Amino acid sequence: MSMRGEVAVIGVGMTKFGEHWDKQLRDLFVEAALEAIEDAQVDLRDIKAMFIGNMGSGLWVEQEHLGPLLADYLGIPGTPSLKIESACASSGMAFRLGVISVAVGLYDIVLVGGVEKTSDVTHGESIHHLASVADREWEAFYGMTLPALFALIAKRHMMQYGTTREQLAKVAVKNHKHGSYNPKAQFQRPISIEDVLNSPLVADPLRLLDCSPISDGAAVAIIARSDIARKFTDTPVYVLGSGVATDTIALHDRDDITTFKSIVLAAREAYKMAKVEPKDINVAEVHDSFTIAEILAYEDLGFVKKGEGGKLIDEGVTELGGKIPVNTSGGLKARGHSPGATGIAQIVEIVLQLRNDAGKRQVSNAEIGLTQNIGGSGASCVIHIFGNKR
Amino acid sequence: MSMRGEVAVIGVGMTKFGEHWDKQLRDLFVEAALEAIEDAQVDLRDIKAMFIGNMGSGLWVEQEHLGPLLADYLGIPGTPSLKIESACASSGMAFRLGVISVAVGLYDIVLVGGVEKTSDVTHGESIHHLASVADREWEAFYGMTLPALFALIAKRHMMQYGTTREQLAKVAVKNHKHGSYNPKAQFQRPISIEDVLNSPLVADPLRLLDCSPISDGAAVAIIARSDIARKFTDTPVYVLGSGVATDTIALHDRDDITTFKSIVLAAREAYKMAKVEPKDINVAEVHDSFTIAEILAYEDLGFVKKGEGGKLIDEGVTELGGKIPVNTSGGLKARGHSPGATGIAQIVEIVLQLRNDAGKRQVSNAEIGLTQNIGGSGASCVIHIFGNKR
Repeated sequence: MSMRGEVAVIGVGMTKFGEHWDKQLRDLFVEAALEAIEDAQVDLRDIKAMFIGNMGSGLWVEQEHLGPLLADYLGIPGTPSLKIESACASSGMAFRLGVISVAVGLYDIVLVGGVEKTSDVTHGESIHHLASVADREWEAFYGMTLPALFALIAKRHMMQYGTTREQLAKVAVKNHKHGSYNPKAQFQRPISIEDVLNSPLVADPLRLLDCSPISDGAAVAIIARSDIARKFTDTPVYVLGSGVATDTIALHDRDDITTFKSIVLAAREAYKMAKVEPKDINVAEVHDSFTIAEILAYEDLGFVKKGEGGKLIDEGVTELGGKIPVNTSGGLKARGHSPGATGIAQIVEIVLQLRNDAGKRQVSNAEIGLTQNIGGSGASCVIHIFGNKR
Repeated sequence: MSMRGEVAVIGVGMTKFGEHWDKQLRDLFVEAALEAIEDAQVDLRDIKAMFIGNMGSGLWVEQEHLGPLLADYLGIPGTPSLKIESACASSGMAFRLGVISVAVGLYDIVLVGGVEKTSDVTHGESIHHLASVADREWEAFYGMTLPALFALIAKRHMMQYGTTREQLAKVAVKNHKHGSYNPKAQFQRPISIEDVLNSPLVADPLRLLDCSPISDGAAVAIIARSDIARKFTDTPVYVLGSGVATDTIALHDRDDITTFKSIVLAAREAYKMAKVEPKDINVAEVHDSFTIAEILAYEDLGFVKKGEGGKLIDEGVTELGGKIPVNTSGGLKARGHSPGATGIAQIVEIVLQLRNDAGKRQVSNAEIGLTQNIGGSGASCVIHIFGNKR
């Protein structure tokens, strides 16, 4: 069977991303879930299963077994509920599994969510925990961190394709501008190219303002069988395509570090299922954990040819008002990056755009949207394509 | 659609459970996977997706992102692969998701596995890590550990139903006897009731020999669409039923701690899908993390009425040669309990039994088998029912 159009998103919700000193992981999840449930106009008891994306609750808050914990705290103990982990792509993957479980006919209505609480430890510990998504034995053990891995990719991309330091900065500037229109964004303050170029060096050539923050947050979507979706909402958003792939865990095992093969493979599956091409996408949320990652996403998603991602940002194609606005939410850079929640936060934004509910950052006439969510330095990737028509 | 009989297990493999000082998590997984692949007679490239159960790789070995890591080390980078966490029920849940993804038509052949490496830290750290499957804020923080939680359950069951200390001991004695026939078991040494009663007290009334070990290990099953299964094997084992449920995370929030509601609910779903009743089960692997847990499993699976689990063990019904042999592998107690791998290890045993491949511990004429896998103190449960006829 094809899953195309079988499942619809009928409600979304999310917390503001940021530093939530006064809330636990479970509180963040429940806040986002209740917003999504209200948006979907479903009864709590209509939810027949939960799929929760989370990267590191074991490491960050020493709590596993999130599935039952969060069903319990949401008020529906008993409900099937489990945790999916694929680093920063955890909740994108959870979304896919939720879609599959509805498509197979197991459940009519499912809650898919993502959550992460990272701010209860020191920054040093957080960086150490984050490195658990790289190869602990052959990368992290020797001192590689996520910024260092992406710095290698950026250096190589600049050398091979002439991508400039300024082009990287423009990604952050664009996403901060978009974030300034999003009340749920962690950073709602526009920045300049000079701000980026003068920010502290993290891993050459990447500076502080090239890096997304590591945020607390939660995001939730309620999905349903498409043929019952209109009972709950006048604006269901249909899942047209879904793709997933992996790559070697370590960067040094790849033929070419200027491309994420996982994006290329996942995109191929998603475009094929959705029966659309890159040129059909009206709005996209991509995984800009670092500015270079957004450049790679443009290329590996087929928005431009390999090496031309820098040109795309120069030409303003991916800004609000351009042909394919990218990261209208502010992206990981400005909306914030809560590893377990980012994948669904991307979906929340695309659903709002396709419902024409995105307020000041609305893309006009958006009919087809895409989300692209990677884990670590691209060892996993999950992509979804949505449409407001079936 | 009904998933009944749509998917078959075509190969299984597992490491010996125990203390594997000379092997990393990735080595254990690859060893089990290669055994399963050889057993299934599939080519590595036939595997189109991987679902990996793991409870605590973040905590125990500071490695997340196991999906791509393990696909990479198995030699098939690129393959969709992710990690599922539901405490000690992680790989039972991974199995269910693999089955769903085949049933929906996404993949023909899928690898489902479980792995855990626990012995690289101190026992104290391990106990702390394990407590992450209970409610960290309202149980573990106040000093509750897994043995303590199960001790409360045992005390209450003894008071309410007259279950005796000797009956608990008999569970361990039976499972050690079964384990002595299993070359993959961690403990292959029979023990006596006196051994159990004289072993050190852990949490009254539970003694050391009432508790399963926390083991290193990995287990893998290869599953396929039933209509192609006979291309690979003459003895496919069909998935007839699957059920999953949760309960409150904390024991103190339950109406009755002598029953695991998650087992009752998951069993109802699995029996219904499989169209069988408890009396039809010829052989079962149940989650005896502590001896009392096996008694509860008898009752909550419907093998006997609530409160009569102790009687069942007295009568020898669940021993090899009895009417429903339980834990012929040795169970968690003697085969070993590697949290992320236990769910699939149970499935390995039932598959061997239904193929008539279980050697000295073979149950004669076994046609229908059941696996029951719980997370933590029963906050999640997953059950599968298998048959050697479709």
